[in-house]
Amino acid sequence: MSKNVLIIGAVALGPKAACRFKRLEPDANIIMVDQSDLISYGGCGIPYFISGDVSDAAQLQETSFHMLRDVKFFQDAKDIDVRINTRALSIDRKRKTVNTKHVISGKEETLSYDKLVLATGSKPRQLPISGIDLEGVYTVTDLHKAIAIKQEISEGKVGKAVIIGAGFIGLEMAEALVDLWGIETDIVEITNQVLPGIISYNLARMVQCHLEENEVSVYFNEEVVRIEGKQRVEKVVTGNRTLDADMVIIAAGIMPNSDLARSAGLKISPKGGIVVNKRMQTSDPDIYAGGDCVEVTNLITGKPSYYPLGGLANRQGRVIGTNLAGGEAEFEGSVGSFVVKLFEISVASAGLSLETARNENFDPVSAFMVQFDRAHFFPEKDLMYLELVVDKSTGQVLGIQGLGNKGDGMVGRINAVAAILKSKPTVSEISNLELPYSPPFSSAMDILNALGNTAENILAGKNRVIDADQFVDWWKNREDGNTICLDCRGWGNAEPFVNKYPDYWKSIPQDELRARFKDVPKDKKLVLICNTGVRSYEAQLIMDKAGLKNTYNLQGGVAALKKWGLDL
Amino acid sequence: MSKNVLIIGAVALGPKAACRFKRLEPDANIIMVDQSDLISYGGCGIPYFISGDVSDAAQLQETSFHMLRDVKFFQDAKDIDVRINTRALSIDRKRKTVNTKHVISGKEETLSYDKLVLATGSKPRQLPISGIDLEGVYTVTDLHKAIAIKQEISEGKVGKAVIIGAGFIGLEMAEALVDLWGIETDIVEITNQVLPGIISYNLARMVQCHLEENEVSVYFNEEVVRIEGKQRVEKVVTGNRTLDADMVIIAAGIMPNSDLARSAGLKISPKGGIVVNKRMQTSDPDIYAGGDCVEVTNLITGKPSYYPLGGLANRQGRVIGTNLAGGEAEFEGSVGSFVVKLFEISVASAGLSLETARNENFDPVSAFMVQFDRAHFFPEKDLMYLELVVDKSTGQVLGIQGLGNKGDGMVGRINAVAAILKSKPTVSEISNLELPYSPPFSSAMDILNALGNTAENILAGKNRVIDADQFVDWWKNREDGNTICLDCRGWGNAEPFVNKYPDYWKSIPQDELRARFKDVPKDKKLVLICNTGVRSYEAQLIMDKAGLKNTYNLQGGVAALKKWGLDL
Repeated sequence: MSKNVLIIGAVALGPKAACRFKRLEPDANIIMVDQSDLISYGGCGIPYFISGDVSDAAQLQETSFHMLRDVKFFQDAKDIDVRINTRALSIDRKRKTVNTKHVISGKEETLSYDKLVLATGSKPRQLPISGIDLEGVYTVTDLHKAIAIKQEISEGKVGKAVIIGAGFIGLEMAEALVDLWGIETDIVEITNQVLPGIISYNLARMVQCHLEENEVSVYFNEEVVRIEGKQRVEKVVTGNRTLDADMVIIAAGIMPNSDLARSAGLKISPKGGIVVNKRMQTSDPDIYAGGDCVEVTNLITGKPSYYPLGGLANRQGRVIGTNLAGGEAEFEGSVGSFVVKLFEISVASAGLSLETARNENFDPVSAFMVQFDRAHFFPEKDLMYLELVVDKSTGQVLGIQGLGNKGDGMVGRINAVAAILKSKPTVSEISNLELPYSPPFSSAMDILNALGNTAENILAGKNRVIDADQFVDWWKNREDGNTICLDCRGWGNAEPFVNKYPDYWKSIPQDELRARFKDVPKDKKLVLICNTGVRSYEAQLIMDKAGLKNTYNLQGGVAALKKWGLDL
Repeated sequence: MSKNVLIIGAVALGPKAACRFKRLEPDANIIMVDQSDLISYGGCGIPYFISGDVSDAAQLQETSFHMLRDVKFFQDAKDIDVRINTRALSIDRKRKTVNTKHVISGKEETLSYDKLVLATGSKPRQLPISGIDLEGVYTVTDLHKAIAIKQEISEGKVGKAVIIGAGFIGLEMAEALVDLWGIETDIVEITNQVLPGIISYNLARMVQCHLEENEVSVYFNEEVVRIEGKQRVEKVVTGNRTLDADMVIIAAGIMPNSDLARSAGLKISPKGGIVVNKRMQTSDPDIYAGGDCVEVTNLITGKPSYYPLGGLANRQGRVIGTNLAGGEAEFEGSVGSFVVKLFEISVASAGLSLETARNENFDPVSAFMVQFDRAHFFPEKDLMYLELVVDKSTGQVLGIQGLGNKGDGMVGRINAVAAILKSKPTVSEISNLELPYSPPFSSAMDILNALGNTAENILAGKNRVIDADQFVDWWKNREDGNTICLDCRGWGNAEPFVNKYPDYWKSIPQDELRARFKDVPKDKKLVLICNTGVRSYEAQLIMDKAGLKNTYNLQGGVAALKKWGLDL
C-alpha cells in the first residue's frame, strides 16, 4: 500500500508532515514542492538574523547538528523528493493532480497524488497606499526579504527606519534594528497600544515604556496615508506627521495564503483561512492543510481563529504525518500562547486578553500582581508583572498575560497556565497550581498562586481594585477634589509624595492603621496605594471592618505606576 | 461569632493560615505560639544563608518590603498575638485547651481554643550512631542551627566537611560549603545514587558528574557507623573508610513532628504523619494540621505520601485559613514537584521517577531526550536533559525529571507538566502541550513536545531504546563480541571512535545509510548512536524497513554519555 503524497510548501509544516509520515511509512513516495529556493528554515528566527544574533541565514536552515536542510538533505537523510523554485498553479481534485510551474525555466508539470498536503503559509496584509513599491520598503514574510533587509543595513544604507504596525513582528523588528545596528526607529500603529488584541492596555503601556527607554518612538492612533520617495523611500506620511525613512518595514499583520485552496473549491472561512477538522483535513478528505494557511479552534471561545505561530505549525505537521499513515491523531485547537523578547524584557500570553475577552462577550475582570520572580530574599531577582483575565459570572480563567525580564521565568509561568487553560480552570486552580519551589527559581507562594488568590479575592468582592490606567485618569483630574490617595507604605516611602502633593496624598502605614484610624479622611473616596498592592489590600480590609468602604486598592501599586512610565 | 483560634508553630503554614483567616474574619482572636524565638522565616532559604548568597539571617524573616516578621509585626500589621519561646506541651481536646510552657521562664499557661491549628513541622531523622552529639555535628532543620553553622564557618573552623545524605538538602548544603567558602566536602550516601527516590539512576549519574566537576566527592552504598572526636568532631567512619571532618551535617531525611498530635489521640499514619482530609482537618474536626507534620495524597498513586515542601505548606496554610472562616477550600494533594539548583545546573521533577514508579507496581518505561533549551540557531543556548516516565500498559504519564542549566528554563518545562499530571495525561498530551514559542525561549518543536513524541514512538514499538547505564554495562563487557556500536553521525564525529575502537565502533552516517546498507554488520546486535538519539532513530527505521531489527537506539546519544561522565 505504498502511497504518493504531495506536499505544497516546504517550510515548517510541510517538512514536518513529510518526515513524520515517512518515518511511519518508509515505502511511501513523497514529493514536496516550494516556489522558493530557500526551504525548511525557522521563520521565527528572522528578526534574530536581521539583528545579527544569528550571523548567517543558512543557520536558520540547519538542523541542530549543523546539517543544511536543502534538497540533498531531504533526499539522502529523509528519502523525500523536494522540488524548489516550483509553484503550484492549480489543483484538479477529480484527477488528483496538481499543476506546477518552475519559476525559472517556466516548465510546467502535472504531479499526481493519493493524498495532498497544503502548507501554503501566509502573506502580508497589503496596505492600500501609494509608495509600497519603492526601494527600501519591505515586509518580513520570507527569508529572501530578510536577507535583502540585512544586506541594505550592513551596507550602511539605513540610518532611519519606520515600522508600520506594533504587533509582535513589528516590535521584534524594532529591537533588531535598534539593538545592534543603532538605527533610529519609529513605529506607527493604527490602534492605541502596542501588541493590540494580545495584551491589555495596562500591560501594553509597560511595554511601550520599555520601548521608549530604548529610544523607539511609537505613534498611536495614526494611519500611514502614503510612502514617499523617488526611487527609494524617503518619507512616511501619516494622518498626523511626516517621518523620514531610509527603510520601511510593513508589519501590519498577515493573512492565510489560501488562494490555491479557494480555486480548488475547498471550504474557506470568512476570514480567509482554509477550514480543517481536528484531523487537519480540509473539506476534501484527501487533502490536508495546516500551519499559517488554516484556521483552528480557539479553545477558550470555541470559535475558529487564526494563529500563524511556528509552534502550532510543527505540531499540526506531525498530526498530518500520522494521519497520512492511517493514524488517528488530532489537533484540538489552540489557546494562542506566545512569548516575545523585547530588549531587556519578555512578554508572554496564553488565552484572551482583557479587551479580547470583552469583545468576545465575556464579562471579564482582571487581577494584576507584581511580585519578585523568585524568593524575595534571593540576591538575583526581578519584579514580574502578571495579569489574569477571569470571567466574573463563572470564575473561569480566560487568559493570562505578563511581563518579566528577558530570562525564562516569565514564559515558565505561562507554560503552566497554557497547559490547563483549555480545560476551563477556575481561579482556585491557579491558586493551587503546584509549581516546583526553591528560592533560586520561585517563591513559596509563587506569583502565579498569589495571582490566583488575588483574583479569588476580587471575585469575592473582598478586594475592590483599580488599575493603573484608572489611577492615571484620576490623577489627571485630581483637582476635582473628590478623591485622595492614602499611602499605606512606611513613612520613608510616602514622605516625598505627601510633601509634593499635600492635598492629594496622605500617609498612614498599614501597620499603624488600626491605631491611627481616626486620621483617615472619611469624606473622600480613597485610592489605597503601597509598593505592589498587598499592604493596601490589608488596609482596605481594616477599613471595611470599620465600615469605611469607599476605598479602592491600586493593583500593582507604585511598582505598576513606575513600570507604566508615570512620573509622579 | 468571633472565634478564638490557636496555632501551634509559627513558620510557613502557621502564619499563612493565621493571616488568611484574619483577613476573612477581622474580628477573630488569634494566638500563635512557637517554641523558638525565630519565627516566620523562609526555611528553604537556609542553604543560601549558609552559602553567603543571603548575608543576614534576618533577611529570611523579612517581607518582600523589608519588614521583619517578628512579634511586633504580627501584632501591628496583622493583629495576631504571637508568643515566642512558648512550647505546646499537651492538648486537652475535651476542654479545648492547650497547655504551654515558656522555655525560658518555665511558666506554664493553659490557652483555650475554638479551633486549633497544628503546624509543628518536621524533625531530622536521627542516626543510631555514636558521636552525633560532638561539637561541629549539625542538622539544618532550623534557623538557629543554620546561624551556628555559618558562625563556625566564618570563624575559619571548617576546612573539611562531611555531609551524610545525598538528598536535595544534602546536595544544597554541599554547594553552600564548597561554592563560596571553598570547604573540602564529601558526601556519604547509603543508596547507590544522589537524589534517591526522586530521579532515575541515569539522571543521578549526570548530577553526580557535575558534583565531581565541582570537587564534591560522593561515596555511595556506604553507611556511617560512627562519628569520632574528643570534644569536637574529627572523623566520620563508614563501613569502607574514615573521612576527616571539622564539621558534619546530617541530612539523612526528615520526619513529621507529630508527637503532640499523637499524645492528643489524633489519627497518625503508619509513617508518622498526621492524617488530614482534603479540608486539612485532623481526625478531630476542630483541629487542623498542615505543612511538614502531615501526610497528603500523592495524586499519581492515590496513596498517602509525605512531602515536606515549603510551597505546599503555604498553599495548605491558605486552605486552612479559608476553612477556619467557614469556607470550603480543599487541598487535593501533590504530585511532589521540586526543583534544586546545584552549582551550574538545575534539577527538577514532578511525579514519579522510573524507580519509584517500579516500586509502586506500575510497568514504567522512560523516554529520554536531549535537546537545546531554545531554538538551536539562537546564540545563547544550553542542552537540556529530560526524562518522561510512562506506564507501558496505559500510556499514562507518571512523572518527569530533568536537568538543565541554572536558569529558569528547566523548571519552566516542569511547571507545564506538573500542572496537568494530576489529571493523568497520556503521552499524546505531552506531544501536544501548547508551549509559547519564540527562538530566545523555546523551540518550534520544544523539547517537551519532542519528549512526548519519543515516548509515543517507544510505546508504539517503533523506537527500541537503551539507556546510558545499559550502554555502560555493555561497554564494560564489549569484548564478548556480540554487539557493536554503529555511529550514525557524520564521519568527522565518528572518526576518533572508529580509530580508537575499530572492533566495536563502525561509522555509517544516517544520510548515507540507504546507499551503504550493504556495509551494515548483519550478524551482531547493533547499538545505534548519534549526538542525541534523533538520527540514530531514523537509522533504526531504515534498518527496520530492510528487516534488520536487532538494533537498539541509545537515548540521548553521545550527549547523554558525556553528561554521565563516561570517558570513551
